[in-house]
This record gives sequence, structure tokens and C-alpha cells, in this order.
Amino acid sequence: MRALVYDGQLELQTDYPQPVAAGGEALLQVRLAGICNTDLEITRGYMGFRGVLGHEFVGVVERCDDPTLVGERVVGEINCYCGACSNCLAGNHTHCPERTTLGIDRHDGCMADYCVLPTRNLHVVPEHVSDEQAVFTEPLAAALEILEQVHIRPTDRVVVIGDGKLGLLVAQVLRLTGCDLLAVGRHEDKLAILARQGIATCLSVDCPEEEADIVVDCTGQPEGFLTARAMVRPRGTLVLKSTFHGQNEVNLTSLVVDEVKIVGSRCGPFGPALRLLDQGLVDVEGLITSIHPLEDAVAAFDRARTKGTVKVLVRP
Amino acid sequence: MRALVYDGQLELQTDYPQPVAAGGEALLQVRLAGICNTDLEITRGYMGFRGVLGHEFVGVVERCDDPTLVGERVVGEINCYCGACSNCLAGNHTHCPERTTLGIDRHDGCMADYCVLPTRNLHVVPEHVSDEQAVFTEPLAAALEILEQVHIRPTDRVVVIGDGKLGLLVAQVLRLTGCDLLAVGRHEDKLAILARQGIATCLSVDCPEEEADIVVDCTGQPEGFLTARAMVRPRGTLVLKSTFHGQNEVNLTSLVVDEVKIVGSRCGPFGPALRLLDQGLVDVEGLITSIHPLEDAVAAFDRARTKGTVKVLVRP
Repeated sequence: MRALVYDGQLELQTDYPQPVAAGGEALLQVRLAGICNTDLEITRGYMGFRGVLGHEFVGVVERCDDPTLVGERVVGEINCYCGACSNCLAGNHTHCPERTTLGIDRHDGCMADYCVLPTRNLHVVPEHVSDEQAVFTEPLAAALEILEQVHIRPTDRVVVIGDGKLGLLVAQVLRLTGCDLLAVGRHEDKLAILARQGIATCLSVDCPEEEADIVVDCTGQPEGFLTARAMVRPRGTLVLKSTFHGQNEVNLTSLVVDEVKIVGSRCGPFGPALRLLDQGLVDVEGLITSIHPLEDAVAAFDRARTKGTVKVLVRP
Repeated sequence: MRALVYDGQLELQTDYPQPVAAGGEALLQVRLAGICNTDLEITRGYMGFRGVLGHEFVGVVERCDDPTLVGERVVGEINCYCGACSNCLAGNHTHCPERTTLGIDRHDGCMADYCVLPTRNLHVVPEHVSDEQAVFTEPLAAALEILEQVHIRPTDRVVVIGDGKLGLLVAQVLRLTGCDLLAVGRHEDKLAILARQGIATCLSVDCPEEEADIVVDCTGQPEGFLTARAMVRPRGTLVLKSTFHGQNEVNLTSLVVDEVKIVGSRCGPFGPALRLLDQGLVDVEGLITSIHPLEDAVAAFDRARTKGTVKVLVRP
């Protein structure tokens, strides 16, 4: 089959072996896949991953133990867990120490004609959700993870720092709480996507000197972290939604003195993400910059790395 | 009056001006004061404080607007707040940006014959609570602040790192939740105070390689932070109960991947602390290493800095 393989460099291979679904697994024909910042990081060495890239997708079940799922259009949770350890038994599947992760950690990804996932990871896509919407389920679930972890009140002042792919989804999800929201970014065109929905936005250089109850860093950059930290009120919450490079300098004493809470946030729930898409509560199609055929996947990655790009999709 | 003054160096002065209570303030005759690590830090330059040291005390109201309080034995909250800003109006008095702090920040402290605090900061000490117990109200309240901020379940595995003055109080407070508690420290004699109460303890070198739901750092040391961080399970909570020196290296990505929560924790509620003392639920007198007359306060500080010392008190 065709597959976009990263093995120290990025290459579209046309004779990559088609994966085989073991017991409890489903073989999925990929219909559409999305490029995430994590994919770009992997091509710079993150996680030391080697194999087929990609973890955001919508596909069709081609083979599966459960006959009712064959032919269904599905999305899939990316963490493949043991189901038997203390984390799994406590419901923390995404933290299973034995987990592999689609296209990120020892599990071939979805930038290919086919991929394989455990059947229990699959969610059927509602009929009225298009492929172009469903492919956003995984990052939308990651945005929703914030609401799994932090109680955001309608009266809270909330600031989202970063107008990249994830920041734009996070802002859209958080505005549903009714909170007093400000999205801060560096790109007028990206912020305009939010402004069109009535979300207050401002450029980083114009960022007001005020405090917020909850600040979400979606930059993964040291300066983004510092900006976010400076905006958290005493006893407020700073959510880290993006990974960072290496170690960071943090003033732990100021966290103690201001009694600030820092919350790391990663993968989230797919069911609610599909509900939001089905109900049209989040605009994801407005984030699509371009769709490329799988043959042009290497060029799609080049495009995804280009300044001003939001979401780049790949269609097998 | 006599007062222990820090002005770049520590000195007992015998002719320090007696403070004057303004409207809304009370003049307090100090009966007993405690030396805290923060006091020791101040003598090394922390907060740039100059003036009378000390913020842990029990005293008697000598003069006050409220006649019912005169003659009463009291303890006092150390943050003097404006009562009008958004933090104060939200109930976050200890985070008032205008606050001064007894013996720590622009407000003369309690290592003296007299000190002054706003009347609204005072709490009457229950009859059966001795001075030697009541002087622990402030640090005990700081330990209770953890329970104000974090929901500790009876089924949680909790680890307290650090067997200093504050760590010994934190462990005693947390065990009241019924949680599965382990106190980790470097001093067999200090841990023995907890072991006598049936609290499980171990030396840092013997610290088990296991994960806990909640870990509290009471060391304020970089290695203590790293030990504490390593013991927090995915989706667990790390409480920072002590201040640190300068900036610290923190792996923010690991917080994101493991979805760990970090909570800074400072001053806490006095009312509940007095209730615990009144009901004999916490042993504080066992922490007293020595009691020195105010004349020997400089020597008391030397003693407090000596390895193996727990709580040193000063009696005016």
C-alpha cells in the first residue's frame, strides 16, 4: 500500500506492507488524515518515532471482529492500552504505561491507505458529520480535555494564548462555556476565524495587562508560557495544552506565593467531540488550508510547515 | 520595648518604639512567638525585609476598638489586606495586591514585647489550647490550606516529602483524611514524631519507587521537587508547600504528557487550625525543640538554624 513513512527523513512509499488486524483489532481504510504539530515535531526527532506518520483520521472499517462495524465510517482514539494495569482499571486508558500511540509511539499511523487500531478505540461518525469535519475529532477531543480537567464557570475570565491549529479549536470549545473569553495570537488572519464567531481576539503585542481566572497556553513556546503565567490571577489556573522543548525555567516560588495551579492536558474524549461536530457547535472546516492527495503527502508536510497555514489534510 | 530587629543583621534592640494601633487595629502583647523557615530565609535576604521579625505568635489584646476583645488571648492572620480590591471582594484576602505581611513584608513582626494587627485578623484562642499549642496556629493553617485547595479522598495514596517543621504539620493534617499516607524525610528523629502517631515514614534513601495520587513537597529544594514530581502518578497532583530559591528547571512537556497538576499553596484558614488544636487532633508540642527568652532571641535563631532542630520558640 501507499504510506508516508518517516525514517529519519520523510518519504512516500508505494509498497509499504499493508497492516494486518490481530484479534480485537480493526483494519481501517483511511479516507482523510490531518497533519498535526506533533507530526511536524516527529519529523524533527520528537519521540524518536520511525514508521508511518499520522494520528488524525477518518476511515471505513474494512475488517473487524465485530461484524456490525464493517463498512462503518469511524474515527479512532490513538492510544492503544493494555486494559489490565492500574491506570487502565482506573479509567485512565490514555495513561497506560504500556500504551503505543498511532503514528507517534511504536504504532504505524494513518497517512496511508490503511491503518489498524483496536476495535475498542473506534467511534462511529454520525451521518451528518462530513469527512472534512470528522478528521478534526482527535484534536477537538484534546481541546475538550481541558473541560474534563478544569471546571470553567460561565463567569470566569479565560484567555487562550496561541492561534495555531489547537489554539483555534480550544478557543471555540471554551467559548461554549459562556465564559468571558479572549484569544491571543500572532496572526490576524487566524484570529479572524475566531472573530467571525464573535470571539474576542487580540494580537500578542496588544495583549492587555490584566489577570484572568484561567489561561490556556497553546503555544508550547517558553515566551508563550511566560505570557500565560503572567496573566493568571492569584489562585487561578494555567493549562498547558502543548508540549515544550526540553527543560523550562519556572519560578516555583511565585506559584506558591500566588497559589497558582498548573494543569498539563493531553488527549481527550472522542464522544463529546463528535457530538459538538454533529451539532455544528464548532467550525472546523474553516480551519482547512488545503487538501492534498496522499501521493503529495511530502509536499503537504512542506505546506503545513509554512507560516500562515492552519490545517493541511491528506486524502489517500 | 524589646524587639528582634533584622536590618541586614539580626539584633535584639531594647529601645525599639512600641507600635501604635490605628483605627481598626489592635495592640497585642506577645506571649510566645515561633521561628519559621521564612524567618531564617529573611535573615538571608528573602523579601528584602527590614524591621521586627516574626509572624507566628499568640498574644493578649491590650488595646482595641472592640472592647469585648481586650484581655482576650488571640492569634492573628498575618496578611493585612485592603478589603476593597477585587481579590479581597472575592474572599481572597491573602492575595490582596496591597497587602503587607506581619514580619515578612512592610509590617513589623511579633518577635517583640508588642505588635499590631488589624482587629479583623484576630482569632480568640479556645480556653483549653495552651500558648505552646496556639503558637502553631499559623503554620497549621498553612498545612490546612492544602485541604482547601485539593480534594484528598480517603482512598488516595499521599506522600509528603520533607520532615521539617512544616512537613511534620502537613503529614499530621493529611492523615486526618484517612488517606494512605507516607512521610518521607532525611531525619530519623523527626520522622519518629510521626511514626509515634502511627504515620508510615521512610528515609529519602529508602523511598519506594511507586506512584502516588498526591505528593506534597515541603522541602523547597530542587531535589525535593524532582523527587516529588517523580512520585506523582499520571493525572495526579503535586502540591508545592514551600518556596524555592530563584528559578527552577521544570520539564513542562512531562506535565502535559502525564496531565499532572501542580498546585502552589501558602497561607491557610485559622479557624479550622484552632479547632484541630482544641480537639487534640494534631500534636504540635512534640515539635518544640526549645523555648528561649526574648533576650536570647539571636541565640534562638542560631539554634533554629542548627541541624536536627524542629521548632524553636521565643517568649517575651
